[in-house]
Amino acid sequence: MKIKLTLSYDGTNYCGWQRQKNKLTVQESVENAVFFATGEKTTVTASGRTDAGVHAAGQVAEFNTSSNIPPEKFYKALNVYLPNDVKILSSEKAEDGFHAVKSAKKKTYEYSFYLSEVPLPLKERYALCLDRRPNLSKMKKTASLLIGEHDFKAFSATGSSAKTTVRTIYGIEITENGDEIKIAVTGNGFLYNMVRIIAGTLLRAGYGDVSENDVSTALISGDRKLLGKTLPAKGLCLKSVIY
Amino acid sequence: MKIKLTLSYDGTNYCGWQRQKNKLTVQESVENAVFFATGEKTTVTASGRTDAGVHAAGQVAEFNTSSNIPPEKFYKALNVYLPNDVKILSSEKAEDGFHAVKSAKKKTYEYSFYLSEVPLPLKERYALCLDRRPNLSKMKKTASLLIGEHDFKAFSATGSSAKTTVRTIYGIEITENGDEIKIAVTGNGFLYNMVRIIAGTLLRAGYGDVSENDVSTALISGDRKLLGKTLPAKGLCLKSVIY
Repeated sequence: MKIKLTLSYDGTNYCGWQRQKNKLTVQESVENAVFFATGEKTTVTASGRTDAGVHAAGQVAEFNTSSNIPPEKFYKALNVYLPNDVKILSSEKAEDGFHAVKSAKKKTYEYSFYLSEVPLPLKERYALCLDRRPNLSKMKKTASLLIGEHDFKAFSATGSSAKTTVRTIYGIEITENGDEIKIAVTGNGFLYNMVRIIAGTLLRAGYGDVSENDVSTALISGDRKLLGKTLPAKGLCLKSVIY
Repeated sequence: MKIKLTLSYDGTNYCGWQRQKNKLTVQESVENAVFFATGEKTTVTASGRTDAGVHAAGQVAEFNTSSNIPPEKFYKALNVYLPNDVKILSSEKAEDGFHAVKSAKKKTYEYSFYLSEVPLPLKERYALCLDRRPNLSKMKKTASLLIGEHDFKAFSATGSSAKTTVRTIYGIEITENGDEIKIAVTGNGFLYNMVRIIAGTLLRAGYGDVSENDVSTALISGDRKLLGKTLPAKGLCLKSVIY
């Protein structure tokens, strides 16, 4: 039987989702929990691999089991063996043909900023400190250029092994709440570092350092150098995966 | 010259404010920063000692210095030598006669809860997980009994060394925002564990396990056993100190 899990993690202390030799990863933590709960050695596959330091509020993953733990109770059995910074929020029997990676239709990632001259200890863990306010309407205008199907080659880190760099972005929401600014990006999939480069580019657009023309040109030419920096992992969170 | 500091810290990794031998404390971190910035060995005195694991958004502290660093620039000099989980937000020359403890008129502490069946990795650091919603109007009614000057002996941990257990509470605000509940308590001063016992008592009142009569009786008799548990430190934050 295939089980579908929805899980959340604080990525601060993890070298990302994917299992790596001699490194603490979220995948290994969850696979160990499955082993302790069922005695089975399994592979737990997530909708996508989040990078080192990236958080998740609603990651989705799957694994196969012969255990007779009821599917909708599995999360409780696993949480017993998980640390405080990784928890399974719910579990269910996966529908026939379900595949955590291939069946994913939409993912939403959110990048968080806050405004402060001094980095704030109570906000630093999950957001990036900005010492001046970017122009939100400039950010929104620039974001609108990215909506739709484009070749996002310029928006990916070198070393990306993706077969195609064409992706579709369904929406980018930029919201402001007091001293907090969030950029939520929904797409059918993302290249390596793509959301962190989009966030860095929109931030620079908000400061007037990257123009709409730079972004339009980068989408055609694939020139990474026209865009903003890849922002730090800590501000990024995988919010949800839609199937 | 006496310098007044406003500072914030994530208390998770600290054994509280007060310097203790062979333990990591916020006071020692700030005193070390003063030493590295000025070469002076000083005592930094806070408005009050926060316990192990308690956070601060607006703690106030003072120290004396002969340094010629301009008072309003001191925070920058200190932040260079402070870890990410302790930062000075501002600094200024203290007014004549200012004393961080004795001049404090009001302090506001906030206790944070969130509702979730499973403890959420992205909220666990700064709030307490509740698996069912307490009745807020019951909590507010019970809170109103605490407003004013009372003997809060029942609301203090044993071993408290305070000369008098009489304190004045100016206000208790209980707010709800989606799945988050906060209790903000403003008073002229607080006994050892007092806010955590108030929060624990109001929570139990919200669940119907502590009655208004229990609280009224405890205020007169000093009987700690009539009240709710002392809640964990991680949900508590010193928000501000008014002089």
